[in-house]
Amino acid sequence: MQKALQPVLELSRDLYALRAAVGVLSWDQETYMPPKGGEGRARSLASLARVMHQRFSDPRLAEALEAAATAAGLSEEERAVVRELRRDRDKAVKIPEALAAEIAETVSLSQRVWAEARPKNDTRAFNPWLAKVIALRRKEAECLGYAETPYDALLENYEPGARTSYLRGLLTDLKAQLVPLLGRIRTAQGDAADPLAGKVFPLEGQRAFNQTILAAMGFDLEAGRLDESAHPFTEGTHPEDVRLTTRYSESDLMSALFSTLHEGGHGLYEQGFQSEFFGTPMAEAVSLGLHESQSRLWENQVGRSRDFWSRYYPDLQKVFPGPLGALGLDGFLRAINRVQPSLIRVEADEVTYNLHIVLRFELETALFGGELEPEGLETAWNEGMRRNLGIAPSAPSQGYMQDVHWSCGLLGYFPTYTLGNLRAAQLFDAARAALPGIPADIRAGSFGGLKGWLNREVHRHGRRYDGDALMEKVTGRKTETKPFMDYLETKYGELLGIR
Amino acid sequence: MQKALQPVLELSRDLYALRAAVGVLSWDQETYMPPKGGEGRARSLASLARVMHQRFSDPRLAEALEAAATAAGLSEEERAVVRELRRDRDKAVKIPEALAAEIAETVSLSQRVWAEARPKNDTRAFNPWLAKVIALRRKEAECLGYAETPYDALLENYEPGARTSYLRGLLTDLKAQLVPLLGRIRTAQGDAADPLAGKVFPLEGQRAFNQTILAAMGFDLEAGRLDESAHPFTEGTHPEDVRLTTRYSESDLMSALFSTLHEGGHGLYEQGFQSEFFGTPMAEAVSLGLHESQSRLWENQVGRSRDFWSRYYPDLQKVFPGPLGALGLDGFLRAINRVQPSLIRVEADEVTYNLHIVLRFELETALFGGELEPEGLETAWNEGMRRNLGIAPSAPSQGYMQDVHWSCGLLGYFPTYTLGNLRAAQLFDAARAALPGIPADIRAGSFGGLKGWLNREVHRHGRRYDGDALMEKVTGRKTETKPFMDYLETKYGELLGIR
Repeated sequence: MQKALQPVLELSRDLYALRAAVGVLSWDQETYMPPKGGEGRARSLASLARVMHQRFSDPRLAEALEAAATAAGLSEEERAVVRELRRDRDKAVKIPEALAAEIAETVSLSQRVWAEARPKNDTRAFNPWLAKVIALRRKEAECLGYAETPYDALLENYEPGARTSYLRGLLTDLKAQLVPLLGRIRTAQGDAADPLAGKVFPLEGQRAFNQTILAAMGFDLEAGRLDESAHPFTEGTHPEDVRLTTRYSESDLMSALFSTLHEGGHGLYEQGFQSEFFGTPMAEAVSLGLHESQSRLWENQVGRSRDFWSRYYPDLQKVFPGPLGALGLDGFLRAINRVQPSLIRVEADEVTYNLHIVLRFELETALFGGELEPEGLETAWNEGMRRNLGIAPSAPSQGYMQDVHWSCGLLGYFPTYTLGNLRAAQLFDAARAALPGIPADIRAGSFGGLKGWLNREVHRHGRRYDGDALMEKVTGRKTETKPFMDYLETKYGELLGIR
Repeated sequence: MQKALQPVLELSRDLYALRAAVGVLSWDQETYMPPKGGEGRARSLASLARVMHQRFSDPRLAEALEAAATAAGLSEEERAVVRELRRDRDKAVKIPEALAAEIAETVSLSQRVWAEARPKNDTRAFNPWLAKVIALRRKEAECLGYAETPYDALLENYEPGARTSYLRGLLTDLKAQLVPLLGRIRTAQGDAADPLAGKVFPLEGQRAFNQTILAAMGFDLEAGRLDESAHPFTEGTHPEDVRLTTRYSESDLMSALFSTLHEGGHGLYEQGFQSEFFGTPMAEAVSLGLHESQSRLWENQVGRSRDFWSRYYPDLQKVFPGPLGALGLDGFLRAINRVQPSLIRVEADEVTYNLHIVLRFELETALFGGELEPEGLETAWNEGMRRNLGIAPSAPSQGYMQDVHWSCGLLGYFPTYTLGNLRAAQLFDAARAALPGIPADIRAGSFGGLKGWLNREVHRHGRRYDGDALMEKVTGRKTETKPFMDYLETKYGELLGIR
């Protein structure tokens, strides 16, 4: 790498080494930390957050970045390192330390209030905290600045380059197509019982099968692990140390499997960066929306497909001959692709999932813009659910209090889930156009072609391009609804005989 | 706590929070980190080490400590916080950053050379690195200063207050008593075969039994864990998050059990500090020699005793009826207390163990003083082994290259193992004098009395007293050889019918 970049690289690698420490501590907190360890862990994480902030504010970093920005002869990738570090630094120093501390403290308390209030449906306790958190995010947005509207500043945290107006158009367009498709599917699908319900799948067999699938995907288990936690997640502490978790239940075979495929997709992204750029933004995911495209592609386009299960279903039947012996491949595919409007987002199928996201986007932009107050949220939620999905919860714990996001003020986060779903379909189309053998490979349990294409076209670029710029480079177009809708139409057309 | 202490406490808690992060990262490195994670982890640990050094050098810490040192009305424990933080700070700033970096780098390389050279008995590759590491430690000792002789400065790292002359006297005295006892025991013991050899003990049963014993000792499993690693260790990241490891082998039942009892003893110390002092030196072990007394007391005075096994041996037989069914309690006790001179320190019995330590102390003080060069070490080792134990290795991998310590320059560390053995016996005597019901309690599987006594008399004091001052306070005398020798005489007298 260019000599002019050396001072930047040194400071950057130090920052990423500290961030990796934060990653290990966060992973440990959800996997192996004993119950009483929480208070000490919070202190360690807070101390590290202060260290990180000091490093970003260090004048040596600003000087090194200025010098590198005007240096001649940097490659485009090297310039991306400088550009993205400046972006991170500018964001960090724009938030006054007092505001950062107030946000951190309020968010931590608010999340605790939410965790206690949710099971009791105690909206009175939670709503004032939600209002506080939103007010602080508004202040943050003003400090950060924005392109068109304050909510854009929040989007920038998760999906650099995305704009509220653009997402609103995309989600409105998507909703208009999903609602009629949902009706057609439900009519064709009928009311058959779930053949996987009520069965028992011993955990030992599940654990071994999940490890097998993860290894088959090409996830390097010498450079990562699969553990268990209450909520599955990926923590990419370092490209050579990527921690995934899944969650096993004896009564639910597919929950762990789809989580493993999902987190495995995230994990391949985290393992896919160029080693010469380890410890820089070029070895970091560009956005949550692109990260989610990687997880969803493996979970859905691969993991819910006939191609995949024509290879693996016989193996799965061998592991669980009792519960699966009498269920054929067709019945299994219909079961794992069953569409059913439900109250809880994380349990939703591929068709209804995005209708959950649309509602959250509508409501959180209204909350953030001040057109909706937390007191009006329960009514607005129930109306939106009825409109989009035809059902509504009887209590807020199954409604607007179900997700942790709002309690932490993670506004701007939800739309990245839908971006991920749309991009997964669009990228999978592009991969198959480039490598027509992919479906046959999947039927043979061979994923090297697909993984290699994702490595080359997506992963290795790190933060060189923003999300939609990368989509345009790889697929010829920005993120669109058409590939996703085509994917659903084709899949359910084949499964249910509708067109 | 006193208001004058507040600025010190804030800085101290931040330091200990960062140290806890180092602890979790180190623990993870030995337990769950995937193989390729080592390089990234080394970077994270190095970054954190630099952060810690900066914190110690921060003038705000020096100012806060000066202000607190002259403040009126501090309790003795609060004054200990200030005194010990000043000690740590002074040590940290006395080592120039360039020397600290040179030591860190050399030690890391030297350890790698040792790991490669040991299996090949490649003394030519290792010796020059050993010489380098010793030279750097001499420089370090000169920076730190010392009371009588440079080696004292190294002892200060592990056993504050201990002096070379004092340890030499203690070890010489011990050796003079151990060598004849060893002869008497070996004559009485005869050559009976080990009844535990060649048996298979399935790991599942071992794991469950070890967890049971650890819980029975009073180790709080809500504030700590027991995992597995290649070399058992304790990492007290925080008094409410104490990580222990053990090591299971199907062919060796007692290795894991004694490791669990040993690390469990360390763990009780780490969990035994006063909560109001968390994040200060008052919630930290005073020395390695005292730490080792806690592990050895549970491993040996408790875990190798007739009292303990009269309660637990029937349970153990139930778990392993095949291999243990025909072996009675007496035969089992003789087997787990068998004395046998051997080449490897960590496998040594209670009698020969300290003869290994005596040799290491003799050799490393000679190396450090320049009277012995690494080239002469193999010969000196073999002569010493023959003198002390009557056997000698055929290769350095079984000799002076067996331990990791010298490759890392951990000079001054070995004698703390013997201090631990002596103090374990001395403290156990004091505990039984205070609470005569302890042996009967142990026979009933009830350890609360002993644990409570250790909590009150040892653990809660943190670093308030140095090792021997605490021994004097608790037992009325500094560390002595008599209680340990009496313990061995009584035990082997009963076991083998000798007096």
